[in-house]
Amino acid sequence: MKCSKCGKKAVFHRKYEGSYLCRNHFVKSIESKAKKTIRKGKMIERGDRIAFALSGGKDSSAVLYLVNKVLGERKDLEFFAISIDEGIPRYRKESLKIAGKLCKKLGIKHHVFSFRKEFGEDLSEKVRKIRKSDAWEGTACTYCGLARRWLLNKKARELGANKIAFGMNLDDEIQGIVMDYLRGDLVRLSRMGGEPIVRNELFVPRIKPFREIPEKEIGLYAILIGLEIHEDECPYLEGPRFRVRDFLNDLEAESPGTKFSVLKTFEKLLPSVRGIVKKESVRIVKCSECGEPSSQRVCKTCELWGK
Amino acid sequence: MKCSKCGKKAVFHRKYEGSYLCRNHFVKSIESKAKKTIRKGKMIERGDRIAFALSGGKDSSAVLYLVNKVLGERKDLEFFAISIDEGIPRYRKESLKIAGKLCKKLGIKHHVFSFRKEFGEDLSEKVRKIRKSDAWEGTACTYCGLARRWLLNKKARELGANKIAFGMNLDDEIQGIVMDYLRGDLVRLSRMGGEPIVRNELFVPRIKPFREIPEKEIGLYAILIGLEIHEDECPYLEGPRFRVRDFLNDLEAESPGTKFSVLKTFEKLLPSVRGIVKKESVRIVKCSECGEPSSQRVCKTCELWGK
Repeated sequence: MKCSKCGKKAVFHRKYEGSYLCRNHFVKSIESKAKKTIRKGKMIERGDRIAFALSGGKDSSAVLYLVNKVLGERKDLEFFAISIDEGIPRYRKESLKIAGKLCKKLGIKHHVFSFRKEFGEDLSEKVRKIRKSDAWEGTACTYCGLARRWLLNKKARELGANKIAFGMNLDDEIQGIVMDYLRGDLVRLSRMGGEPIVRNELFVPRIKPFREIPEKEIGLYAILIGLEIHEDECPYLEGPRFRVRDFLNDLEAESPGTKFSVLKTFEKLLPSVRGIVKKESVRIVKCSECGEPSSQRVCKTCELWGK
Repeated sequence: MKCSKCGKKAVFHRKYEGSYLCRNHFVKSIESKAKKTIRKGKMIERGDRIAFALSGGKDSSAVLYLVNKVLGERKDLEFFAISIDEGIPRYRKESLKIAGKLCKKLGIKHHVFSFRKEFGEDLSEKVRKIRKSDAWEGTACTYCGLARRWLLNKKARELGANKIAFGMNLDDEIQGIVMDYLRGDLVRLSRMGGEPIVRNELFVPRIKPFREIPEKEIGLYAILIGLEIHEDECPYLEGPRFRVRDFLNDLEAESPGTKFSVLKTFEKLLPSVRGIVKKESVRIVKCSECGEPSSQRVCKTCELWGK
């Protein structure tokens, strides 16, 4: 097939738009979509110092590459990257190497922090030690996600960032929305919007420039711009999110555009969700153990990781 | 296992409640749950004349049986049943026979109306004629559901009913909610609440006494009370609803209580959904062709069935 814009050989068929795109127009369309999302959500503003959460996977690598490409020349903005070493044998070592290489290539400062150093143990040790005990809650992702977010937020703040950029794509966003809905977690749902939310001076607001771009397209973008990507799946991955993912993929295959529709419906409901949450409002305090922000006296990270 | 209430042999393990129930306590629990749903949603009130939409399947048979059992003695209430013969070879003939037998047994007046008589053709003919043509929209369920609802509403109203009772169970309700959400159809979503909605004098408000009871439990209830049930699946069934069904069943198996959580979250959001819909409000007019209520000049049933 030929590119709907220029007639050159198409590399991608964007079904929900009914268009075919050549390499060049595909790359351009991703970059202009991300720019639009950034503008619409007021994600990046004059004077921002942005920490990129960089795992070395396609999404976080691509978002660093893209934002640096389109805004890297701006003198009033500052970008650096933070990677977290959870201590997942092989898996993370490989991806950290790739993350480091990308930062070097782009001239971006790269900070690496580890669970071992911060919490005294690796994720793999933690899982081995308590998975079969009564203390075990949820899945490995519960322990990892919690500690990773805690560490990213703390380090980004200490390094002077006023925003953290994540690689989350449209698929990640709507999976999260559906999961929060299924769990009835309106508080989390209320934070799933497009603009950075200032909750408290201890929380660094998050931005997700790819939240309106399907995962598949970010994958192709990363390939087309020649990024070296760490493609393995985390060996600990488990839980209902994967059912949600498959379900949404099936529906999208059947009716192209469903994924956008889920995000759009959510955005219509978001002001109301926020209204409901505000009424039940959650107070943020400093955790009495670690001093990081928490909705309880002792934060969940200290509870599960014994900080 | 033994019944958590009386120690007799249990026939059911209600995982989301952590209880085991014997035949007797299971039947009682279904009846008291349905009564609670009816009371909470103000579904049945003094002087009501209720048309039961009766297909002969487990849900519609059980709802007629149950409501008649618990409220049939009330002199101020009047119940009758309406069945629709869509003209689905074998499938519907069998179920209509069962529906007729149930009404006879309960002493309930039974009315049967057919697509053939009302629209000049059966569903099977309609599907055969236009499935492969350009005029074809959606699935057989689109044509059937539309015409069935049109006919039920018209006949119930003409027969003097002020409410129509449906057998929809918890699974049906949340499948509908998820489907409407996925399609971004806030108007339909706004009508998925528990209480009968008076939209217009031409629409007979609907009630769904089983909307908080899981499908599996209605099936067991129907068996335990000895209802003769038509169990075949409609040969025309297709579409995304079945993906949604399987997805929700998988999640419920993994985390018992998920189905209730979906309904509960929906009910928290419902007032806001209604607020949004009201702003975009839909005007109901009389269809210029058939005189039935419609949001357009010509209603969708007349458009698709050429009335």
